[in-house]
Amino acid sequence: MTLKVYLSGEIHTDWREQIIEGSKGLDVSFDAPVTDHAASDDCGVAILGAEDQKYWHDHKGAMMNAIRTRKGISDADVVVVRFGEKYKQWNAAFDAGFAAALGKSLIVVHGDEHQHPLKEVDAAALAVTDDPAKVADILRYVLTGKLPA
Amino acid sequence: MTLKVYLSGEIHTDWREQIIEGSKGLDVSFDAPVTDHAASDDCGVAILGAEDQKYWHDHKGAMMNAIRTRKGISDADVVVVRFGEKYKQWNAAFDAGFAAALGKSLIVVHGDEHQHPLKEVDAAALAVTDDPAKVADILRYVLTGKLPA
Amino acid sequence: MTLKVYLSGEIHTDWREQIIEGSKGLDVSFDAPVTDHAASDDCGVAILGAEDQKYWHDHKGAMMNAIRTRKGISDADVVVVRFGEKYKQWNAAFDAGFAAALGKSLIVVHGDEHQHPLKEVDAAALAVTDDPAKVADILRYVLTGKLPA
Amino acid sequence: MTLKVYLSGEIHTDWREQIIEGSKGLDVSFDAPVTDHAASDDCGVAILGAEDQKYWHDHKGAMMNAIRTRKGISDADVVVVRFGEKYKQWNAAFDAGFAAALGKSLIVVHGDEHQHPLKEVDAAALAVTDDPAKVADILRYVLTGKLPA
Amino acid sequence: MTLKVYLSGEIHTDWREQIIEGSKGLDVSFDAPVTDHAASDDCGVAILGAEDQKYWHDHKGAMMNAIRTRKGISDADVVVVRFGEKYKQWNAAFDAGFAAALGKSLIVVHGDEHQHPLKEVDAAALAVTDDPAKVADILRYVLTGKLPA
Amino acid sequence: MTLKVYLSGEIHTDWREQIIEGSKGLDVSFDAPVTDHAASDDCGVAILGAEDQKYWHDHKGAMMNAIRTRKGISDADVVVVRFGEKYKQWNAAFDAGFAAALGKSLIVVHGDEHQHPLKEVDAAALAVTDDPAKVADILRYVLTGKLPA
Amino acid sequence: MTLKVYLSGEIHTDWREQIIEGSKGLDVSFDAPVTDHAASDDCGVAILGAEDQKYWHDHKGAMMNAIRTRKGISDADVVVVRFGEKYKQWNAAFDAGFAAALGKSLIVVHGDEHQHPLKEVDAAALAVTDDPAKVADILRYVLTGKLPA
Amino acid sequence: MTLKVYLSGEIHTDWREQIIEGSKGLDVSFDAPVTDHAASDDCGVAILGAEDQKYWHDHKGAMMNAIRTRKGISDADVVVVRFGEKYKQWNAAFDAGFAAALGKSLIVVHGDEHQHPLKEVDAAALAVTDDPAKVADILRYVLTGKLPA
Repeated sequence: MTLKVYLSGEIHTDWREQIIEGSKGLDVSFDAPVTDHAASDDCGVAILGAEDQKYWHDHKGAMMNAIRTRKGISDADVVVVRFGEKYKQWNAAFDAGFAAALGKSLIVVHGDEHQHPLKEVDAAALAVTDDPAKVADILRYVLTGKLPA
Repeated sequence: MTLKVYLSGEIHTDWREQIIEGSKGLDVSFDAPVTDHAASDDCGVAILGAEDQKYWHDHKGAMMNAIRTRKGISDADVVVVRFGEKYKQWNAAFDAGFAAALGKSLIVVHGDEHQHPLKEVDAAALAVTDDPAKVADILRYVLTGKLPA
Repeated sequence: MTLKVYLSGEIHTDWREQIIEGSKGLDVSFDAPVTDHAASDDCGVAILGAEDQKYWHDHKGAMMNAIRTRKGISDADVVVVRFGEKYKQWNAAFDAGFAAALGKSLIVVHGDEHQHPLKEVDAAALAVTDDPAKVADILRYVLTGKLPA
Repeated sequence: MTLKVYLSGEIHTDWREQIIEGSKGLDVSFDAPVTDHAASDDCGVAILGAEDQKYWHDHKGAMMNAIRTRKGISDADVVVVRFGEKYKQWNAAFDAGFAAALGKSLIVVHGDEHQHPLKEVDAAALAVTDDPAKVADILRYVLTGKLPA
Repeated sequence: MTLKVYLSGEIHTDWREQIIEGSKGLDVSFDAPVTDHAASDDCGVAILGAEDQKYWHDHKGAMMNAIRTRKGISDADVVVVRFGEKYKQWNAAFDAGFAAALGKSLIVVHGDEHQHPLKEVDAAALAVTDDPAKVADILRYVLTGKLPA
Repeated sequence: MTLKVYLSGEIHTDWREQIIEGSKGLDVSFDAPVTDHAASDDCGVAILGAEDQKYWHDHKGAMMNAIRTRKGISDADVVVVRFGEKYKQWNAAFDAGFAAALGKSLIVVHGDEHQHPLKEVDAAALAVTDDPAKVADILRYVLTGKLPA
Repeated sequence: MTLKVYLSGEIHTDWREQIIEGSKGLDVSFDAPVTDHAASDDCGVAILGAEDQKYWHDHKGAMMNAIRTRKGISDADVVVVRFGEKYKQWNAAFDAGFAAALGKSLIVVHGDEHQHPLKEVDAAALAVTDDPAKVADILRYVLTGKLPA
Repeated sequence: MTLKVYLSGEIHTDWREQIIEGSKGLDVSFDAPVTDHAASDDCGVAILGAEDQKYWHDHKGAMMNAIRTRKGISDADVVVVRFGEKYKQWNAAFDAGFAAALGKSLIVVHGDEHQHPLKEVDAAALAVTDDPAKVADILRYVLTGKLPA
């Protein structure tokens, strides 16, 4: 069994690297959105031409990024969504809803302080944790049946 | 043509009533989540029994509410999601992602101050506005071809 | 919002009547399998002709009953599955799996003594209770937002 | 033609090994749930933290195991479900229902003593036998057209 | 529960009328192909203009009839396919395959003389009989739980 | 059998009225896009506010119209697409492709002069004609089995 | 582009070999049912045990063969169905209907004498021919754009 | 992440080569229709035999080409549709609609002169440009996160 895992959400800490590092040796492939914040914001106008209105500037970028995120989520067996401490992160919750509607196995990563406002997202998940290292433990267990020592 | 419209998101202002009022005479039916905040938070334990842990308290409620929200979104032709000024509102973004994955026509309602963090949600929408009255105008146009005077 | 509810599982107590009675006044329609145990066992041979082998006797009946159960589950918004105190009840668990794969909202009803062996079924459910009356409470809340007094 | 086969159900005898051994040389890949009973029961709390309530202890484990079982069943061409002599085995029947709803080819393995209570499960199957060795015979025939000598 | 039943296949005897008559009082609606043989053969050219080649003459008619048959089968809960004594009746077998792929409940009606060549069609069915009156008995049982006296 | 028919394409002649008139007495319901050309072009900015760029002006309108056209096509059993003598009419061909991918029964109406460039669209259709009156004849035949005198 | 092609139908001539031979050098993979007539008829009882009734003898075999045929058709891009000169061949027409409902590209091979009774099957096909060699020509054109000299 | 890209539309300039050349080094595979205009027009009759009527001549070819185009679009993650300066190009718009209904990421390439008549097609796209080189830039960004210098 090979698991395809999509790592959605917060892009300012190294949680993706922690999961990938912790999953060494497992039969997993990872995908993720573009995590270069500036490129992600400006890709639309950088390639397709400037816009006067901030709304359309953002719109062109968001649509271009959707080519990658829809592909990543649609192909995934497991979608991990991490909510960090800052920002609105509505795109993370949007991805979680998108994944849930497609019947993907959802793992949500967030701190306790966000427990109440994330209750609907958590209710759609098969696992919830505040620790990226535990996501690797889950993937190891799912693939090998081995629990952490 | 009859439109089924689901009104998701913010529950502290009368935006749903504005849309319903503005849509009088149109062939539209509306659904929405339970908008009684206390009942929505406590339904799980009120019916199924108390929990010691806040996480499971919330979990039981969120799962019970999901019976209604999934039904409402799945049956809808149009899903309107409103983001208000307060709170994290991740459930609203989750609903938007869920609706987008099901191919529903999405209309997003939010103020300008939320334009940038909502750009991925807006990019999945067929219309974006800051004014609930305009949602009724859209429904009228879609059903009758009539534009506001 | 009208809910279509399918009542699967145990056929020797009046739990279906309790739920239907408790749901009076709600916009719900109920379906269920044939609950006449003898007719359900013998329908295949009674209509299509006797079989020498018990296996084919049962097979013809089970296939005929499947016309009704598949239709009932496929049309439902909510599938309630009750496990009683006796018998293997594998058909109830089969229905639960069938409903889960179709993305139906699942409510499971069983006593505490069955909690551990039903954990995989419960994990696919949006609500679990040992009391049919609470299923009616859930349906009332889902449809009206009203909690029991 | 390569067949993907998922081996669901009873985990206390070596029936999976019999099928895998009997299928040597065939173009088949096998998946199965975690068959370490203790790990399967405790994976949720072992990774994500202890629970006071047995229900939630089991729930966290069952949801984590669902990541693997849903993936295994969804990817499979053929789902083999074995019912052993002991336990309730509702998860096996749940998997059978899940597989049936997804249109998978279902093979059911059980002894004669369970024939009547499994009639609904058998009625959804393309083959029923009491002997794991015959499952390998079926896979060989399906892939090569060769019947046992 | 309302059943939608599509009556496919042989058009030279009154088997459809027998089933409809036998189902009086039941909550069933029936659809069927156009059973006027001449109209069915010639509809394409009669409406859209003559063709020199028999192949295209037939093709235009078959495509026009497909508007009705696809709709009828797609909307149905139960598809009954009858094979008569004469003709190739490949369209009946085609309809059966079409219905099976859509997951419809299939009932096949044919005489014993066709048992062997219809074995693949019968294997996809939930009931097989040589008597249209028994189809009505099945529908009555499925809807009411009542067996014939 | 009730047919839902969506009438897509050319909006400058009375072909829709001809079909509706010719279908009097049949169990058909018709939907269509907004056929007021000016309203259709300007609806986006009229309701949601002006745009400086023609591209975004058109974009907002086209997305708003998509709420209606996607609903109309998705709900339809039969999609009729008419290509007139003027304009590029790429939206008509787009609708035809959209309908074909959803498995709708497609009827195409166009003059002989467009036969060659429409060959891929025609190849996805179940009927092709240059005369709207014949579309009504087709609907009458499909629903009643009656051919024109 | 790699094409997966399923070769259904008549099993008494070498038409499959002709197509495979004619497709040498192309990026195509072929699947087919078991073409050993005796094995195909008796596989069910040979593996799972004898039956007294011919109906159940055939039924067990037909269900076992369905494991292969459903897999082959479901995985295919193109389904070729050949009707020979003898036998009822209802399984071939059933496969064609099954493939059509799944949206597969269908190629039908039959002699002129069967043109009229196969008109509904042909109407669902993208190509119809009486010559297996032309099927290879079609596959070559589809994959390389080269027409026969 | 590997992207499968289908290049639909205009076949008289080297835009496909520009995109393929500009995508060197990326993990992309490209498919396209047969771009030999004469072969594409005549393939049906060249392989399956001549037709007297131009309509059926074209029809046989268009159906044969559909084997390739439906496969290419259905397998793709991204569908690029280019509209050139000449011809009706309804097949291009048809492909765009087909791709949109399947939820594919759509990129549309056309000059400014076609902006207004293509507004419905553009509204279904995630990116619109007049320059094939920018399509390669988009693919590079989607796969690597790198923007053009």
